[in-house]
Order: sequence, then C-alpha cells, then structure tokens
Amino acid sequence: MTRLLQTIEPILWRDEQLHLLDQRVLPHTENWLAFYDSDAVAEAIKLMVVRGAPAIGVTAAYGVVLAAREAWFSAGENWQEALIPALKRLAASRPTAVNLFWAIERMQQTCNTLSKYESPEPALLEQAKRIHQEDVKANRTMGQYGADLLDNDSIVLTHCNAGALATAGFGTALGVIRQGFIDGKIEHVYVDETRPWLQGSRLTAWELMQEGIPMTLQADVAAGALMAGGRLDWVIVGADRIASNGDTANKIGTYSLAVLAKYHGVKVMVVAPTTTIDWSIENGSQIPIEQRAHSEVSEIEGHAIAPAKVHVSNPAFDVTPAALIDAIVTEEGVVSSPSKEKMQQLKKEEKNDTNSISDRM
Amino acid sequence: MTRLLQTIEPILWRDEQLHLLDQRVLPHTENWLAFYDSDAVAEAIKLMVVRGAPAIGVTAAYGVVLAAREAWFSAGENWQEALIPALKRLAASRPTAVNLFWAIERMQQTCNTLSKYESPEPALLEQAKRIHQEDVKANRTMGQYGADLLDNDSIVLTHCNAGALATAGFGTALGVIRQGFIDGKIEHVYVDETRPWLQGSRLTAWELMQEGIPMTLQADVAAGALMAGGRLDWVIVGADRIASNGDTANKIGTYSLAVLAKYHGVKVMVVAPTTTIDWSIENGSQIPIEQRAHSEVSEIEGHAIAPAKVHVSNPAFDVTPAALIDAIVTEEGVVSSPSKEKMQQLKKEEKNDTNSISDRM
Repeated sequence: MTRLLQTIEPILWRDEQLHLLDQRVLPHTENWLAFYDSDAVAEAIKLMVVRGAPAIGVTAAYGVVLAAREAWFSAGENWQEALIPALKRLAASRPTAVNLFWAIERMQQTCNTLSKYESPEPALLEQAKRIHQEDVKANRTMGQYGADLLDNDSIVLTHCNAGALATAGFGTALGVIRQGFIDGKIEHVYVDETRPWLQGSRLTAWELMQEGIPMTLQADVAAGALMAGGRLDWVIVGADRIASNGDTANKIGTYSLAVLAKYHGVKVMVVAPTTTIDWSIENGSQIPIEQRAHSEVSEIEGHAIAPAKVHVSNPAFDVTPAALIDAIVTEEGVVSSPSKEKMQQLKKEEKNDTNSISDRM
Repeated sequence: MTRLLQTIEPILWRDEQLHLLDQRVLPHTENWLAFYDSDAVAEAIKLMVVRGAPAIGVTAAYGVVLAAREAWFSAGENWQEALIPALKRLAASRPTAVNLFWAIERMQQTCNTLSKYESPEPALLEQAKRIHQEDVKANRTMGQYGADLLDNDSIVLTHCNAGALATAGFGTALGVIRQGFIDGKIEHVYVDETRPWLQGSRLTAWELMQEGIPMTLQADVAAGALMAGGRLDWVIVGADRIASNGDTANKIGTYSLAVLAKYHGVKVMVVAPTTTIDWSIENGSQIPIEQRAHSEVSEIEGHAIAPAKVHVSNPAFDVTPAALIDAIVTEEGVVSSPSKEKMQQLKKEEKNDTNSISDRM
C-alpha cells in the first residue's frame, strides 16, 4: 500500500494496454485490471471499476485508442467509419459526467486530422496521454487555488471521493485538501461515508489515511449535527457536470449538504477542471441524472439489507444551484459566488488560454 | 410473516418471561428471544434487540418485574433495597430515550406502595402490563390525531423506524402513516434507509410492505433532491426525547431533514407519547447524545466497509430545535409550532387528564 501512497494513480497505460485499479474492491484489495478492447472499457466505466468524472474522461480517451486499434485491424482504410459504434458505446456508459463526452469528442477531433491509410493508434495514444497529463496538471493547479481560499486550521467536510482515484492523480476536492494540509490550512477532514456506493468510507478515507491527514468518517446523516455544533468551515466537493450558469451536478447528497451549509453559514467549494463544465446547457435542470441499480441500496457486498422486492429509488447525482456555491475552483481560476456572467468570464479566459496553448503547439 | 402482519408487536409477556422480537436480524429472520433476568434485558436494550423510545420504556418496565422477582427470591423482605442495583443497570442501558427512565421511575413508585413482606411481582407485572397497554392505546390516538393533519393523497418521508417495532404496537410516526393510509390521506411513503443501523431498510420498509402501503426506499442522502423535486408534503418522525420547549432528540439525520424541510416548505411532524417528554430540561442542549460503536459505521453485518483503524464518529441522535417542527403529536393532543408556552399548555392538559384517570381508578 505504501508504494501506492506516493502516487495514487488509478489509470495506467502500459504494454499497449489500459490498466485500471479496480475501485469496487478497495480498500481491502488492490487489484489491477488490464483492458484490450474498448467495449470492456465501456463496461468498466458502467460498473464503476473506475469512477469520478475526470478519471472517466481519461479512461474514455484510452478507450478510443483501443477502439481505433480494433477499427484499423478490422476495417483498414475504413477505420474512421468502423470506429463510430464503439465510440457510441463508450459515450453511453454513463450519462451524467460530461468529461466522458468531452474526451471522446476531443479524440474524435484528432481522428478527423488523420490519414485513412495509416494506423491512427500512435497519434490517438499521444492525444490520450496528453489528456491524462493535463488532468494531473490541472489538479495540482486547482489544489493550490483552492487551498489559498482556506484560512489556517480549517475544518472541512468532503462527500464522495473527488480524490486521486477520481482523477488521473492528486484529485480535485482532495487535491485542495492535500495541498491545504501541506500548507497548514487543514486541521481536520470529516468524510461522509457516501451511501450507497460508500466512496467516502472505501476510497476517501483510504486516501487520507495513507497520507496521514487527520480525518473522521461519519454516516452522511451526521452532517447536520456537525454543522450545528459550529465546527465546520467548508464543504469541499468535486463535480460531475457544471452547467454554464454554475449549477453543479455531483454525487447524490451534495445538494443536501449545500442547503445545510447555507443554513449554518458554512462555505461550499466545488473543485473541478474546466472539462467538467458543459457550456452547452444553461442550467442544472438540463443535466440528466443517472438512476443506478436498486441493489446498490438494498444490498451491501451481496448481502441483502432490506426486504426482498423492496421498491428503491437510487439517483446517483443531484444538482446544487449556483446560488448555494461559494466558489467553483478550476485550473483556469476561481469563480466566486458563481453566476452565468461570472462563468462567461471564465469561459473567455479559458478560450484565450487555449488559443495561447495552440499558438505554442 | 403474515401472522405477524396482523399484529406486529415486538414485546410479549408469556409464561412468566419477557419475549422480544430480535430487531437486529429483521427482516430476514424472525427470531424471538426469551428473558428471565433483568441484566439480560438491560443488555438487550443496549445491543438494540429492542429499540425505539416507547418500546424501550415498555421493555424496561418488564425488566423491573424480573429484577423484583430476583430481589424477592434472593433478599426476601429486603427486596426493595436489593432491587436498586438492577434498576440502575437497566437505566444505564441507553442514555437518550427518556421513556426508559420514565418507565423505571413509574415502576419504582409502585414498589414504594408495596409491602416488604410479600412478593412484589404480581403488582409490578400489573403495572408493566398497564404501561404496555397504555402505549398501544396512545399510538392509536396519536395515529388519528396525526392523520387528521394530513391532506388527502399526501406524500411523506419517514426516517428511522418509529413503527410498531419501536413501540408496544402500531407505532408513532408509522401509526400516523398507517392511520393516514386507512383514511386515504397517504399516497406514497419515502423511507430513508437510516444509516448506520438501517432501521429504515430493515424495519420500516418491512412494516410498510407487510401492510401494502406504497413505499420507496432511498439512501438518506437522496432526501434533498426529493424535496427539491417538489414531491413531498410532510416529514413524519418519532422522538427519543422532547425537551420542555419542544426541542426534539431523534435518530441522527432528523435534524438535517428538518433543515431541508424548512428550506423547501415541507412540514415536519414529530409523533411521540407524552412519556417521551422530559419536563425536567429546558431545551435540547441538555439532552445527552449517545455515541455508539464505531463498527456500526465501518462494518455492515460483520463485513468491513472502510479501512482498518479508521477514525469514526457515530452519534446515534441529533436535536431538532422546536422552531423547525410544525407539529408535535401526542396522545394528549397536538402542539402546533411548538414553544415553551404551548408545551406548558399540553402539560396542564396532561395533568388534568392524569388526575381524571386517577379519579376514575
């Protein structure tokens, strides 16, 4: 485990294959799965072998590399057409995280620049690796931007896992907490266990314990009493999709936390790369919310914890209106008290930045 | 199971023993445990073989019967003195539910009226049975009072289990829901699974399904999104202790729900017999909050769901201020928008009522 501690990276490309750390069996088992074909990657995203919006995006990019290899092998010069069904299956793996669609779109743009008579794999792999590296870099940048918002000795609460495991490494919300801890800004981290999938208990607690960051795990229901006790400064979370007005879809329960935070004067920070922003939608009501298997609620590790045939609702995400968010932290900068106008300002900066990157390329 | 359906009663006195339906293994196993001695009863309360404030009160009353039998057997005419340590152990079984102390106190008052030269058992058993019957009757009365507050086709959310299993039968919050369903007031019931002990999944879902009341189980974190969707009229819960100003201790998470309800214009109903009111304390800050075993959060049915040695906070209850409660429903009447003054009015009525009962006795 100590080896992993230094570099928790859930996604590796090695020996011409994609390797994913199986997050379904953490923290008890550290099991890596290797992927040769893109349909298996789509299934892995669906089954949450890998989860977290940025990590899903990076995984999908490598999935496109595998799909292109298959298409070139089976269809030769018609590889671009042959590729389409596999990309559709990758895109259909999960509906809420927008990084998935963003990564596939960016890979497709690269496809469009390639010759039909050559294997697309080298160029696509280069692009996927770039997406991978950019995510790590974005996390480091966001970590510092977010940490700078914290007062010394802050007590924070995080929900779900927006850590190294949810990204290419370092993490979004946990990136801020990691950097904050290094900078002396973090006194203590409360971790919601995050039912039903228990990302908090299984993944976030594990990440924080490995780095010796002081933490307390609690049932999600305990957040209200914690805030009422007056011992909380910030709720810090990631995001699965941010609308162009700042409304944020994140793990189910985030909205409840944001309402509780508002009531108690606790601040709310959303940490996500700009790849999580869906500029095509006006507000959060347009974000599709995934309903996941009922067994996630009625069973734990295969054990029934509710009567047979019980009727279950299991939305995976909820939407927190921008008005309940104090800061959205991206690698392009911080949007305080987000609104449509302030988000547009970020978009402009992002564009300028992208242009200058293209200029350098 | 159908047999039980007709009369879900978790506490029975039969063959000179106390029988408890083991709520730790429901809904999969219907297992009754028999108790001969009061220390085992105290342990059963502690381990949550029986739980729910009213049920704990009734159980403790029978526990006193068993303790008195032991004291009479071992100490003869000194039984009253010999009884004291056993009563202390019963009282120490759980700290928050006030019905426990109330029931022991009432049994002690009966003791004080008895001769030291005769077995106290018959008189105490009669008193315990009276407490038992009064609880069932109170539940029926509260059920109607609460149902009368609902509009037709209401959609409600309940947390934890304040059902037949939490009482001598019929239930407090679930008594209102049962009666409301009979009266055509209930369209649908959402049930919080209620981590960490899963009373909602295991007990409330089971009770409602047995009676064919339409219900949906959800993770506790889904309550905010449910309310934001505008499909909820009432949050209906029980109580473990109510302060004299109406502040209410109930299962952890109730406070979060009450804040969310206030934010969304959803009403909050607390349903509890007057035995749950602690007139000796001014407000909720004086209610001791039990911290339970960390393994309740870090394990489920013996399976670790978090890293070994993780630090856990596991408060069993939280306190909802009276200002967040729309109605406290008791068997003596309904207190709308509870306050110290309105609760005092209830106390007077209760006193008059008790007097009139004594007059009749």
